[in-house]
Amino acid sequence: MEHMTVGRYLIERLIDAGLKHLFGVPGDYVLDFMDRVVASDLEFIGNCNELNAGYAADAYARLNGIGGICVTYGVGGLSAINAASGAYAERVPVVFISGAPTSAQRLAHLHMHHLVTTYDMQWDVYRKVTVDSAQLTNPVTAPDEIDRVLANCLIEKLPVYIEIPVDMVDAPCRAPSPMSFNRERVSDSRSLDECVKEAVALIHSAETPTILAGVEVHRFGLADRLLALVEKSGIPFATTIDGKSVLPERHPSFMGVYMGALSRDAVKSRVENSDALLTFGAMSTDINTGGFTAHLPEGNTIRANMEKVQIRNHYYDRVWLGDFISALTEVVEHRSYRSSYPGRPHDAKGDYTAEADMLLRVPRFYERINRFIDKDMILLAETGDAIFAGSEIYIEEPENFLSQSYYLAIGYCLPATLGVCLARPGKRVLLLEGDGGFQMTVQELSTLLRHGCNPIIFLLNNDGYVTERLIHDGPYNDIQQWNYHKLPDAFGGDALSFEVRTEEELEEALYTARGNPDRLVFINLHLPRDEGSEALDRLSRELRRLQTGG
Amino acid sequence: MEHMTVGRYLIERLIDAGLKHLFGVPGDYVLDFMDRVVASDLEFIGNCNELNAGYAADAYARLNGIGGICVTYGVGGLSAINAASGAYAERVPVVFISGAPTSAQRLAHLHMHHLVTTYDMQWDVYRKVTVDSAQLTNPVTAPDEIDRVLANCLIEKLPVYIEIPVDMVDAPCRAPSPMSFNRERVSDSRSLDECVKEAVALIHSAETPTILAGVEVHRFGLADRLLALVEKSGIPFATTIDGKSVLPERHPSFMGVYMGALSRDAVKSRVENSDALLTFGAMSTDINTGGFTAHLPEGNTIRANMEKVQIRNHYYDRVWLGDFISALTEVVEHRSYRSSYPGRPHDAKGDYTAEADMLLRVPRFYERINRFIDKDMILLAETGDAIFAGSEIYIEEPENFLSQSYYLAIGYCLPATLGVCLARPGKRVLLLEGDGGFQMTVQELSTLLRHGCNPIIFLLNNDGYVTERLIHDGPYNDIQQWNYHKLPDAFGGDALSFEVRTEEELEEALYTARGNPDRLVFINLHLPRDEGSEALDRLSRELRRLQTGG
Repeated sequence: MEHMTVGRYLIERLIDAGLKHLFGVPGDYVLDFMDRVVASDLEFIGNCNELNAGYAADAYARLNGIGGICVTYGVGGLSAINAASGAYAERVPVVFISGAPTSAQRLAHLHMHHLVTTYDMQWDVYRKVTVDSAQLTNPVTAPDEIDRVLANCLIEKLPVYIEIPVDMVDAPCRAPSPMSFNRERVSDSRSLDECVKEAVALIHSAETPTILAGVEVHRFGLADRLLALVEKSGIPFATTIDGKSVLPERHPSFMGVYMGALSRDAVKSRVENSDALLTFGAMSTDINTGGFTAHLPEGNTIRANMEKVQIRNHYYDRVWLGDFISALTEVVEHRSYRSSYPGRPHDAKGDYTAEADMLLRVPRFYERINRFIDKDMILLAETGDAIFAGSEIYIEEPENFLSQSYYLAIGYCLPATLGVCLARPGKRVLLLEGDGGFQMTVQELSTLLRHGCNPIIFLLNNDGYVTERLIHDGPYNDIQQWNYHKLPDAFGGDALSFEVRTEEELEEALYTARGNPDRLVFINLHLPRDEGSEALDRLSRELRRLQTGG
Repeated sequence: MEHMTVGRYLIERLIDAGLKHLFGVPGDYVLDFMDRVVASDLEFIGNCNELNAGYAADAYARLNGIGGICVTYGVGGLSAINAASGAYAERVPVVFISGAPTSAQRLAHLHMHHLVTTYDMQWDVYRKVTVDSAQLTNPVTAPDEIDRVLANCLIEKLPVYIEIPVDMVDAPCRAPSPMSFNRERVSDSRSLDECVKEAVALIHSAETPTILAGVEVHRFGLADRLLALVEKSGIPFATTIDGKSVLPERHPSFMGVYMGALSRDAVKSRVENSDALLTFGAMSTDINTGGFTAHLPEGNTIRANMEKVQIRNHYYDRVWLGDFISALTEVVEHRSYRSSYPGRPHDAKGDYTAEADMLLRVPRFYERINRFIDKDMILLAETGDAIFAGSEIYIEEPENFLSQSYYLAIGYCLPATLGVCLARPGKRVLLLEGDGGFQMTVQELSTLLRHGCNPIIFLLNNDGYVTERLIHDGPYNDIQQWNYHKLPDAFGGDALSFEVRTEEELEEALYTARGNPDRLVFINLHLPRDEGSEALDRLSRELRRLQTGG
């Protein structure tokens, strides 16, 4: 048997933890490690730059359960910090691996290229946006450090950082011993009992109990448990925007996405007037709350998050979200709430008939997409109007909607599309991408083409930052107008590329996209310069109202 | 008179400090500040993403004396960290300005979008890669903070960070009082006297004194002083690679660039066998020393850096580089060292005749460029082979060569081209850009086109990371082959675009470029896949030798 080394140990543990693809960009401090990666069962996916690699790994992790990137020291690691920050803000388990100079160079304080200040600086920065981290400088302790860091990544669903100096890659170390990364959290049984008892009493005495499902339910893999609770109890549910598609929207108890004043009226009214509102894994961010326009019924609200349940104004600690859902499901009684159920959001879809020479308008486009998307597609909505409009698109199956809807890094979604394509090869990505965001990370279109990915990319071309334009306009919101549809060819790819200005042209593009399930389809969608979706309209009105104190 | 506000104060001081253009990307936490910028005498230059904006500002600062970017909080600031790191590593005075949530949001610990952990996190990160910084949270102290931070930027020639919350932009504050940012450093006069006396005695007793000029001479604006010393003393000089073009290469005392084993033999021999080597503002980095293959004559070396002079094994503190050069110039005697002068590096240029159907080879290309470039062009050399090959290209006038030759962030040079074009509108940029680097930051080609910049861009298309391929090859060094010459059109620009495979085609492209001085010229230069310049050849041989301990 071959001797174990630190580099191979790290790779084996990444595979044990569920990783299949590793994103990254080469650079001299990480080439030895990359040699071991390409010789392993991990597939290395080269990106055009490190930030894009980080975004791809983040999206991959949201669906695969863990993602990873490996980059070089300094110029590489420090270029990916914003991806780690986004992963931290939105609880995504991504492993950031960086090469580093050798121990000898470090000890001699040599001025090696890519070094900024001290040899610990990059680690110091990453410690601010990761839940655990290690510099692998000692082959004796490296295996334990790797195990601990990867376990914390999976248990906490947060990014971690591992730095592997060049001379450590082939340093001999102990072989991996059996371990499980799926350590279950443990609740305090007395707290759990009391908490469930109180919650169920509130539910049983209520007329309009309501469930609001948030992103933690997805991250911690609790969707099936929550679905069981929904079905056993009969309680209607909404989701937050970052929790959209955590439960299937085709479910008869689904009401829609709740985002404060941005929600459709029936959902807003049901959630805010509920006499027993149960939120599961929902975060109180400005976006989830529609710019803090949410008015939850505080006196009747049960908030369950990762390890804490709040009922009205008191807390139960050490009550694990998964246990809480399961225990509640066991004791809750079924009732029918159909009389007060506000109806499914998508039932009024009705017909859509394209008009031949009609110039495409934003609301009509989203109406059309809502009828085009099916259960084998994953919708990616770029930060900007696409997220707000996307919140109202009908996502039949769970996990078929993805956006970075709290950290909101513009440009996230194009690299994220690569991550999703690799994590879910059986599905097709439908990407809604603004032109401003697209320009930020455009080169990853090349990587999508390189790997034969088949997304349908809608480039929402409104000649600038339309979300900002509607909220706060100025000349800085203008950008260079590109011939976007020419890019797949310029990037050396074999794609189907369209310019769409009318409803009829949109039909042709959609028809071709549907008929070519294996090809990348790029649609340059010319939209009015100052028009947003109906959802963005509601948001900008609301933000103006808040700003003026009106 | 209008009331002064914190936002306007900052803008006025940036202008006082010498800033004319401010790079950046909009985002909601910085839009109020941007409104004040576009209403001011500062020209706002919108970039495609924040890292690119940082690179553009860095290059701009190298020529203009100060550069700046402004971006939004979190997603913006944290995307630009690698640019700040590069500026810190290479001593470049760049002001990084970030918007931020309001004080009220901060005090309430609201979960605002773009927030990762605490409201201080981004500042904490920037403090690691800046010499001074401020969060402008109090309008009473903000003016003093702005003055202090900008002064330190200019005095230390290092990046700084300023965070301006949305509600501070229009907060009233005191008016600017007269101040000068050009505070001169002061030497300890007794140390200076003794140091100069010792140095001049060493010079006068030497047969082969030699000057090695480094980057600090340029950063601190000491080129004229050093040139006076060269001319008064008659001592021949070389430069480091990061100091290339700090003094004019047409000067009769210029010998070439010294990079340890990578230097041409005559320069290496002269520097390493000098009986009085004077280094001015030179840094001992792995690149400057040719991978630590430099063997300076330690017993006969005088190293003068910013505020410290080392002679053999002892130091003089508080001796300012500028004072040392001036004082030395006053007392040094002129002698002729022509008999031992190793000759100018470029005298053997001779003729170059293109052969019609000859496929272009890398060494021939650089031979040709060496004859094409003139004193009104600025050569930008991207990290990779272009830097090594560029070290040997003849730069007649000072400040006509620019590269990030220590931090070596691949992708730096395309955004940097934008910075140089704006800082030196009377000159034309000749950019040598590798394909790997180009893919990292390609979208900034759009910004160059948008502003009607006129660089000649040589895309060194060798189908991957050739520098790494020659040093350490693997499949990760392959990249997607693009139709690079189609990109200017795809980016909506009006450029002259060429595909060049033969020497004759290169001539046609160069002829057209010369005849169209106002247009962007893009040349997709098809080069052999595994061929580097002669300089890269020497480097990779040397690195292999060092790695194998041979």
